[in-house]
Amino acid sequence: MTALSQDVLGQHFINQQWIGSGPSFPSYDPIANKESPWTFFEATETQVEQAVQAAHNAFIKYRQTTPEQRATFLEAIAQEIETLKADIIQAAMLETGLPEARLQGEAGRTCNQLLMFANFLRQPNTDVQIDTADPNRSPLPKPDTRLSYLPLGPVVVFGASNFPLAFSTAGGDTASALAAGCPVIVKGHPLHAATSELVTKAIEKAVIKSQVPSGVFNLLQSSKPDTAAAIVKHPLIKAVGFTGSLKVGRILADLCAQRNEPIPFYGELGSTNPQVLLPNQLETNAESLATTQVQSMMMGHGQFCTSPGLLIALKGNSLERYKNKLALVMKEQESAPMLSSSIASQYQEKTSSLASHLATLTIAEGNAPSKEHHTQPKCFCVSANAFLQESMLQQEVFGPCSIIVECNDTDELLRVISKLEGQLTASIHGDQVDIEQHKNIIHELSYKVGRLIFNQMPTGVEVCHSMNHGGPYPASTDVKTTSVGIKAINRFLRPICFQNAPTSILPNELH
Amino acid sequence: MTALSQDVLGQHFINQQWIGSGPSFPSYDPIANKESPWTFFEATETQVEQAVQAAHNAFIKYRQTTPEQRATFLEAIAQEIETLKADIIQAAMLETGLPEARLQGEAGRTCNQLLMFANFLRQPNTDVQIDTADPNRSPLPKPDTRLSYLPLGPVVVFGASNFPLAFSTAGGDTASALAAGCPVIVKGHPLHAATSELVTKAIEKAVIKSQVPSGVFNLLQSSKPDTAAAIVKHPLIKAVGFTGSLKVGRILADLCAQRNEPIPFYGELGSTNPQVLLPNQLETNAESLATTQVQSMMMGHGQFCTSPGLLIALKGNSLERYKNKLALVMKEQESAPMLSSSIASQYQEKTSSLASHLATLTIAEGNAPSKEHHTQPKCFCVSANAFLQESMLQQEVFGPCSIIVECNDTDELLRVISKLEGQLTASIHGDQVDIEQHKNIIHELSYKVGRLIFNQMPTGVEVCHSMNHGGPYPASTDVKTTSVGIKAINRFLRPICFQNAPTSILPNELH
Repeated sequence: MTALSQDVLGQHFINQQWIGSGPSFPSYDPIANKESPWTFFEATETQVEQAVQAAHNAFIKYRQTTPEQRATFLEAIAQEIETLKADIIQAAMLETGLPEARLQGEAGRTCNQLLMFANFLRQPNTDVQIDTADPNRSPLPKPDTRLSYLPLGPVVVFGASNFPLAFSTAGGDTASALAAGCPVIVKGHPLHAATSELVTKAIEKAVIKSQVPSGVFNLLQSSKPDTAAAIVKHPLIKAVGFTGSLKVGRILADLCAQRNEPIPFYGELGSTNPQVLLPNQLETNAESLATTQVQSMMMGHGQFCTSPGLLIALKGNSLERYKNKLALVMKEQESAPMLSSSIASQYQEKTSSLASHLATLTIAEGNAPSKEHHTQPKCFCVSANAFLQESMLQQEVFGPCSIIVECNDTDELLRVISKLEGQLTASIHGDQVDIEQHKNIIHELSYKVGRLIFNQMPTGVEVCHSMNHGGPYPASTDVKTTSVGIKAINRFLRPICFQNAPTSILPNELH
Repeated sequence: MTALSQDVLGQHFINQQWIGSGPSFPSYDPIANKESPWTFFEATETQVEQAVQAAHNAFIKYRQTTPEQRATFLEAIAQEIETLKADIIQAAMLETGLPEARLQGEAGRTCNQLLMFANFLRQPNTDVQIDTADPNRSPLPKPDTRLSYLPLGPVVVFGASNFPLAFSTAGGDTASALAAGCPVIVKGHPLHAATSELVTKAIEKAVIKSQVPSGVFNLLQSSKPDTAAAIVKHPLIKAVGFTGSLKVGRILADLCAQRNEPIPFYGELGSTNPQVLLPNQLETNAESLATTQVQSMMMGHGQFCTSPGLLIALKGNSLERYKNKLALVMKEQESAPMLSSSIASQYQEKTSSLASHLATLTIAEGNAPSKEHHTQPKCFCVSANAFLQESMLQQEVFGPCSIIVECNDTDELLRVISKLEGQLTASIHGDQVDIEQHKNIIHELSYKVGRLIFNQMPTGVEVCHSMNHGGPYPASTDVKTTSVGIKAINRFLRPICFQNAPTSILPNELH
């Protein structure tokens, strides 16, 4: 690996200044399974306060910027990320162990998201409503009322371990919050703190270039839960974006709900993304379905929020063919490091407990690990009956693992679907006849997911107007919003009605 | 008062059946200050379970109804309310003490809301997004993705003490939930339980007439907080609508957040609806502003969520003229009963504590009460300095009371605005010059409210597309939704993306 073209400071970025000293923590090199060459100062209480105050002061000015000014700012961020891309990707490769091609793709997506919002801000706002006055209406005259949207205020975004770029420092939540008019404080993920710092340097330049207020973007580095808690509890923070585990997400969600002023918490907390294999399709394509399943499951060594972790199908010859092929393809899959040693040990623990569970059968494994910190891809099989009784079998195993649920008949299949917790996605694999014959199952499944996919794998989230990346709890903590696509901006906006307002007061979109 | 044309059963309405027995509670006659002639059975644990199960079972069918079927159902409810209107208004007059004209207006608004949603359901759904496939895109083909909305599931609606019709049994939340495709359980307000029962009888007939599933609407009568808690904690309930006090609202909001599966809680919890009197306007119209202020404050004896409870102005001659006129007009206002004895005693307590507060001055009062349970309209005056220091002066006094905050200069006025908690509404009273000269104050105020009004009083909420009835906490617990107007339907819908779905699966609006 080539060296970065610049030093990593290890500092926080507050109000356009780099500051920090005192105790520090290292980030992690998953491939070598050791500390990264870089250390980062732990944010202090004072720095949390400074960052929030900076964001609050910036809000007073930033909320008055025009959509064009915010569009220019978002474009500048994308441009500066392009300029620093070589360093950013070097750092991210070292800190996540993810391959260069994947991180190149993620960098591209990150910039595209910023440009998508820039483009959106330049379109006429079509989401407003105008009802003009009718002074002659009886019994009472009708007032002039006009509906538009205001930004919520300073927002905290938590970096995600598995998406160091697209769901982190300048990722989806940051892009949509800045587009909405909300200043952002990123709590950098400690596993890829150097990547966060480098992306922040891009934003630092963009702030100057586009002359938006200092303090519109701030980065706090920390490895401590207490610091995370202090940020979300600060009275001047008005919303939180998070992608991570159910356990941590629920702690933060509860803190947000318990505040004196409760605030929205947008947490994406995990999903098993069930794949329903319908009979005809399975009979025709058992082998290719098995291959595609493994390919999708192995993306990022299974560390995708849309990784297919659950397969649901009817017992029979076709499923046996599918399982045989799966076992063959799985044998070719390499063991590999996970994003962190704690993610690896959770994977080991959960797969061991599945392997030793009376109701489950290990049916396929990847290559045995060549190094102690590598984890082995695994597939298990379980009866629908056992699945319906044991809620632990529904828990997400973050990593390259999936469970096949074998159903005796379509009634049992429907019961399994009805029992599912909320999911980001699910896929139906079926031909035309399958789909016509299983409409009730498909209908029930639609109420469990944020995105319902037909004959495709869930990995690969399209960034577009019609995307929904969210879902019923526990997939996300707010089923009504998405973290991907244009509608993500609505996380950070709220409606306001202007009644009988003079034109000089109305925002442009209401003229 | 004439007798009702039918008996009041005092029962619950579950799955199209009237049931109930055992312990009961009376509703209240505020004018006579005694129990009403009617008693109501307390809902048992079993009945809560039955009602939720009925709503859940109904959901499986009701979510598959067409928009046209739901429109027909809403129209039928409005029609049946019209048919039963004489009885409904008789009961509501007795149970709330509100005058007939006001309740006639509220009944009209309730029906109009139902018809507005029926009309909306018949329009083409313009809120969907369609991105068609591009199989030739590189590096990856683009899938077909289409965004629409699904109903959340069974919803609980709490009746509001101060709006027995428009925010209760067949009120705003019920209408928008039913429009969205969500079955409803109304927890009837114990103060107007007979009114709830009669409105439910209208819905009962509408269910039959329009052939929607049994269990799509259920009424539970209860006076017990534990029963309310049991309903919102039930795992099959997916959202809660509430209009009431900050204290009770916050308890229910916390229960919703603490559930194993947290659910949205839409609480409207109170507002002082600040009136900002700018200098020119005050100088020109001091007397008429004072008269309008009192008229607005006296609507429903001050028991409107948009009652103007706070006036903010600069010290000086004009304000003295305003206060003098206010004192004169206030002297003509009658004392009157409140909706309940506990609301009356809270009013007494809060106004006594204001009257005895060192920083406040009682500047105007209505007629002395002729009966012990009547409450007297009151106006107090306080310096901006005291207001800035004492958060209790910001608390809503539910009833015919308002506080004038006197500011030394516009800087102090801005500090008062900045200190305000979240509000449903605020009004700016200013001429063109006032408005140009106080743009920063108006801008700051916009971030405190859900509706910003110019030169009009806040009472009288227009039911239309551009209305927003909500606001930053504590005005509401979800600043992003409204309880009035077409957009209220979004409380009970959530997005879903269909990827690569065959046409036979797509809902009509995505074809």
